[in-house]
Amino acid sequence: MAVRTPDPDPTPDPGGNTNAGWLSDVELEQIRRRLPLLYVEAVPVRVDGLGNVTSVGVLLRATALGEMTRTIVSGRVLYGETLRDALFRHLEKDLGPMAFPLLPASSVPFQVAEYFPIPGVSAYTDDRQHAVSLAYVVPVTGTCEPRQDALEITWMTPEEAASDDVASEMEGGRGALVRAALASVGALR
Amino acid sequence: MAVRTPDPDPTPDPGGNTNAGWLSDVELEQIRRRLPLLYVEAVPVRVDGLGNVTSVGVLLRATALGEMTRTIVSGRVLYGETLRDALFRHLEKDLGPMAFPLLPASSVPFQVAEYFPIPGVSAYTDDRQHAVSLAYVVPVTGTCEPRQDALEITWMTPEEAASDDVASEMEGGRGALVRAALASVGALR
Amino acid sequence: MAVRTPDPDPTPDPGGNTNAGWLSDVELEQIRRRLPLLYVEAVPVRVDGLGNVTSVGVLLRATALGEMTRTIVSGRVLYGETLRDALFRHLEKDLGPMAFPLLPASSVPFQVAEYFPIPGVSAYTDDRQHAVSLAYVVPVTGTCEPRQDALEITWMTPEEAASDDVASEMEGGRGALVRAALASVGALR
Amino acid sequence: MAVRTPDPDPTPDPGGNTNAGWLSDVELEQIRRRLPLLYVEAVPVRVDGLGNVTSVGVLLRATALGEMTRTIVSGRVLYGETLRDALFRHLEKDLGPMAFPLLPASSVPFQVAEYFPIPGVSAYTDDRQHAVSLAYVVPVTGTCEPRQDALEITWMTPEEAASDDVASEMEGGRGALVRAALASVGALR
Repeated sequence: MAVRTPDPDPTPDPGGNTNAGWLSDVELEQIRRRLPLLYVEAVPVRVDGLGNVTSVGVLLRATALGEMTRTIVSGRVLYGETLRDALFRHLEKDLGPMAFPLLPASSVPFQVAEYFPIPGVSAYTDDRQHAVSLAYVVPVTGTCEPRQDALEITWMTPEEAASDDVASEMEGGRGALVRAALASVGALR
Repeated sequence: MAVRTPDPDPTPDPGGNTNAGWLSDVELEQIRRRLPLLYVEAVPVRVDGLGNVTSVGVLLRATALGEMTRTIVSGRVLYGETLRDALFRHLEKDLGPMAFPLLPASSVPFQVAEYFPIPGVSAYTDDRQHAVSLAYVVPVTGTCEPRQDALEITWMTPEEAASDDVASEMEGGRGALVRAALASVGALR
Repeated sequence: MAVRTPDPDPTPDPGGNTNAGWLSDVELEQIRRRLPLLYVEAVPVRVDGLGNVTSVGVLLRATALGEMTRTIVSGRVLYGETLRDALFRHLEKDLGPMAFPLLPASSVPFQVAEYFPIPGVSAYTDDRQHAVSLAYVVPVTGTCEPRQDALEITWMTPEEAASDDVASEMEGGRGALVRAALASVGALR
Repeated sequence: MAVRTPDPDPTPDPGGNTNAGWLSDVELEQIRRRLPLLYVEAVPVRVDGLGNVTSVGVLLRATALGEMTRTIVSGRVLYGETLRDALFRHLEKDLGPMAFPLLPASSVPFQVAEYFPIPGVSAYTDDRQHAVSLAYVVPVTGTCEPRQDALEITWMTPEEAASDDVASEMEGGRGALVRAALASVGALR
């Protein structure tokens, strides 16, 4: 299975330094082999009136080779950008402008996922880079319409989302991340 | 300062066993000296669109002796009741039916507060009982109208809520709990 | 499968009130149908020098009917007892005096497990009572020799401990709790 | 007060790619204005046999200008390095080889601190760079002998470490981080 982490979109640097934070593809490629890159990821969920997670959103993508893989909301934190800004930007990028996500009051993630280019160092792999990702469970209250390269969002029960079948389709080992997300909200059996 | 933890209201047992979970005042008084009682507590907050805490709700009450003290949403978990049900019930009891609280997806508290009748065992005291409280930060999106014995809810900046002045007015040592709540959401300087 | 939560041992009340905290079997039986009881639980683990969990300790017990079931360290919090004292007492009770557990610096549990007498309310059941349990991952550095009614402690890899086979042998649904424990330390695939 | 985050030491890349992860001073300087850098930080503590935090270690440093400032264990995560390896490396660098730190079983930090070059974006500043730091409370069991540019480690009570005096001497706003560390272990009043 092709393993990838979504590329940052070429949004201008939110920190104000107009060119400083922008990296050309070549520069980014070079840096990716020399520094761990910081990512944020989100497992979108629906909750009931008491906060119980009732369903989990999983994204379907086509790789450059035409393979279908599943993933979650994911993207790089830019220079000068707060974690919350990055999380909101990637939620909007992947779920559309009408998803109305409820960002958590705490910026402590439910898990820190470490992606290495070489398998076996951790549960997660990314053949392009060493990335460290802060992962959050984010309730969404509106309508999700995937944009960019995501083809579709599939809403699953917690049981389906935690199944071996779905885990085997997730890119980069993110099946473990979805299970950890469910465990963090008491929805993993 | 008089130290108290709000009494449970005489709501029928939500577990279905109509009389089992209900305790007379005498029975509750006896049990309070023989078992730790389980409580839930909530620090109500307002958040902006990115989840940043912008203000903190603190309740003002009059004690039986006419003293004014500050506190947070607090109450006992009944037999057969889930933590989420108890949290929702006490939020409604203390903030009114139009507060529209957003219960967290995770039931892991930001702190477990241990209240002992004797000062010095922990940061928290309750002269009536040994109580163990699971404390949550809960964003509210509606209008708060304190009911029952709460006179008023005061919305403060995180700085005000963490101040020594406010802490000294909080019953049972809950100033430390408010500070821990703020720290858990990155709002304590 | 018989479902049970280990009984408290008849240790004198650590709070100092010599008789107050002690409950006869009859009294405890009555209270169990009227109040949620507070428990602490621990998943014992071995860690390497960097804190990575390398193995998980699971207890084997025989029920009154002679069935074998698996469980974790578990027990009631007594009147006047701190959570740390209760956790230490039950670790010593179930793992022996030479286990040398390293209690976590934070008393925030990785999960709050709600046990109900009726299945379906949550992931966890206990036919004797409504119990709410604060669950911790506790590294042990010494030698474990189960005492009392535990027959044996089995050390498993994280993969084995998270398997469906082991989960199906755990009493009260604690397979989900072990998986959540593993997820909280990044050891669930 | 001069604000700084300790530089990475020129240790060879632990990821195996012998030159890839090493950055010259000029390169690092350039990257610091274009990408958020990933850091780990640790608040060293002493705990008693039940895990209660009894004292907090604060480092004293002299800046290039001869000013004295206080800080905690802090440093960059290198390419190919796990968070645990980075945390252990910086603990050894700042506390010496005989500190015997007990790394937590969970790699979820108690707080994610965001350092920006411009004050006001968050509680934390670093005039050299945008850094995002995963912060941990780490019990140490051995003898601490600061190496490199740390002059001294001072052991304080939780009350002293949380005081306004100490907070005002901490570089980059880390007084708030120490308070959040204490709150996370229930040691902030």
